[in-house]
Amino acid sequence: MASDGTAKDSGTELDRARSGDHRALARLLSLVEDDSPRIRSVIAELLPSTGRARIIGLTGAPGVGKSTVTGALVGAFRAASAKVAVLAVDPTSPFTGGALLGDRIRMQEHATDDGVFIRSMASRGHLGGLAASTPQAVRVLDAAGFDPVIIETVGVGQAEVAIASLADSVVVLLAPGMGDAVQAAKAGILEVADLFVVNKADKPDAQQVVRDLRNMIALADRAAGDWKPPIVSTVGVKREGIEELVDRLAGHWAWLGDTGELKRRRQARAREELTALAFTGLRERLAASRLDELASQVAEGALDPFAAAAELLAEAGS
Amino acid sequence: MASDGTAKDSGTELDRARSGDHRALARLLSLVEDDSPRIRSVIAELLPSTGRARIIGLTGAPGVGKSTVTGALVGAFRAASAKVAVLAVDPTSPFTGGALLGDRIRMQEHATDDGVFIRSMASRGHLGGLAASTPQAVRVLDAAGFDPVIIETVGVGQAEVAIASLADSVVVLLAPGMGDAVQAAKAGILEVADLFVVNKADKPDAQQVVRDLRNMIALADRAAGDWKPPIVSTVGVKREGIEELVDRLAGHWAWLGDTGELKRRRQARAREELTALAFTGLRERLAASRLDELASQVAEGALDPFAAAAELLAEAGS
Repeated sequence: MASDGTAKDSGTELDRARSGDHRALARLLSLVEDDSPRIRSVIAELLPSTGRARIIGLTGAPGVGKSTVTGALVGAFRAASAKVAVLAVDPTSPFTGGALLGDRIRMQEHATDDGVFIRSMASRGHLGGLAASTPQAVRVLDAAGFDPVIIETVGVGQAEVAIASLADSVVVLLAPGMGDAVQAAKAGILEVADLFVVNKADKPDAQQVVRDLRNMIALADRAAGDWKPPIVSTVGVKREGIEELVDRLAGHWAWLGDTGELKRRRQARAREELTALAFTGLRERLAASRLDELASQVAEGALDPFAAAAELLAEAGS
Repeated sequence: MASDGTAKDSGTELDRARSGDHRALARLLSLVEDDSPRIRSVIAELLPSTGRARIIGLTGAPGVGKSTVTGALVGAFRAASAKVAVLAVDPTSPFTGGALLGDRIRMQEHATDDGVFIRSMASRGHLGGLAASTPQAVRVLDAAGFDPVIIETVGVGQAEVAIASLADSVVVLLAPGMGDAVQAAKAGILEVADLFVVNKADKPDAQQVVRDLRNMIALADRAAGDWKPPIVSTVGVKREGIEELVDRLAGHWAWLGDTGELKRRRQARAREELTALAFTGLRERLAASRLDELASQVAEGALDPFAAAAELLAEAGS
């Protein structure tokens, strides 16, 4: 790749990004978000510098105080002098293409801090796109020396489960008075949680949420040696409980390393990423293929859809 | 296919399903849901008998009264002596695998009516699966003489948009006091709606929901001759407004035919279906391929993910 002029330019940009130039970093992430062909050489180049950052996923329904807790977490990590990045990902909004501007605004306390980088990414229409592009964004931030990288997603649902699978540690936020423990259970969020945060712990019903969670955790199938998700109570706006959350995250990180689970998770993540990239590749090739012609025949009942799909797949792979 | 013994058996089963045997129909739909290899010959066989049924999609957030309105709609269609089918699809629950049992129970008033068939389908872990299997379930019901086929989905999000795209007419339900007009707008649901139903219209804030919707509809880009979604106010539990909904649906159906939009939609639907089937096929082939080996190399930073994905795609297509 070094002999490729384009890649060399990006290399310089990567060097600038590493040395703390946030505008260079933002340009690299725009390449990722726009799915620019250039990103392929950039990723190939920075690949050897990746794998260092701890990746923390943070998810929860709107209104639980995700941005407040993320902001407080960023502050706590910064106190330990790390370079901290936040990727705010919105998988629920296929049409608006809007990013989480509100979240960025609410985290403005860190806006003038060079050790903090905050970026929103939207899905641009399909989950596959996000599943394929988020790992690239994480690689860019990792290579630029950010650690931890926090991936924040909004909402409770299948998309959040998918994004959560990109993290080393998954934090699920709940809050009292939202009936969201049950919602989260329904959406399969509980199964992917490594840590629970019950935010707004100063509200009357917070203890009930903690109890509900504790029961759900007790009921879950778990083998000996498996991780048992701790529950941390926080009051994000007062930064209460944040130190405990940082400690618990450190505990999970140590467990990941000690048990070999980190390697297993990253392998699984790479498998997800490759599948998503292959899907994206297939989508691109289908667009240029005989898709329309075959679809017409299927719509008219003249061709069996399975035979048509097999033909498409064969053409796309060749 | 007629020379294939398996297909012949299914043929008999299809004949039985057509003649009103709900257990035969249920077995055919289980083949679809289990993604049985047999379904391919069944679909190929029944394909010439499809394309007749009107397909109505019905979606909305939990609590807006979807099941009540669907139940009332079923009653209204049955009064016109049609055979009516309801497919209740839950795309939000990847882990539980549970179907919408509650909805089935609530529609028990139709349980003893041979002209009504109600079936729940769950996603079994990935959206692609549902996007690929729902059209097959619709084909089976269509070929068995059900018209209309109502596809009911729960929730408001990208998954619902995907399922909605399977219908000829998409009905979006809202209700007062849930702030869901804005939610729906955020999730892109408004863009896919052909008709709006404001249910619980006897509640105080219902008129405000109607006004909000009217404003959103007025603001939408629409060319001359485009369909302008009507808003129907209903009180599902009292069956109020259901006749108007049936009339409006008939109006949309006529418009679809008159403008050639029906053909265009069904072509687009076949394109979506073929894409989903090709993805499912790719997923199957990836599982058997060098995915693990390549993922390890990517996880270790030894191989660029784009190159790995291209290799996977080439192997899967061959």
